Amino acid sequence: MCEANVYMRDETGHDRLFMEHVDIIIPGPDGLYMENIFGERKKVDAVIQEMQLVSHRIILSRPGSA
Amino acid sequence: MCEANVYMRDETGHDRLFMEHVDIIIPGPDGLYMENIFGERKKVDAVIQEMQLVSHRIILSRPGSA
Repeated sequence: MCEANVYMRDETGHDRLFMEHVDIIIPGPDGLYMENIFGERKKVDAVIQEMQLVSHRIILSRPGSA
Repeated sequence: MCEANVYMRDETGHDRLFMEHVDIIIPGPDGLYMENIFGERKKVDAVIQEMQLVSHRIILSRPGSA
């Protein structure tokens, strides 16, 4: 399965695991909607910094902190 | 390998294949930088509409057309 782990990057550049096994990501006007392969859903006020799909890594940051 | 195929959605809702086997996507101020597993690179003035990682699909649209 090709889901990814989603990390939140803080102001110091440290990546903290935010959600595992994410399948769906839909950007919206007030952040990102995410759904993982277990049907868990999260909405977060964040932007995508970088996606590394082969490494299963998606890195987010808080808006304005990049 | 868990790369994805990237599609551009047009104004009529039709998805056209834009780039295959994409590994890296980095959003920037003037669009998206993409790199596939063959080392090919593209930069495109677009935004991410939706990502379906298990289905290996990433859907883009032109800014302002969503």
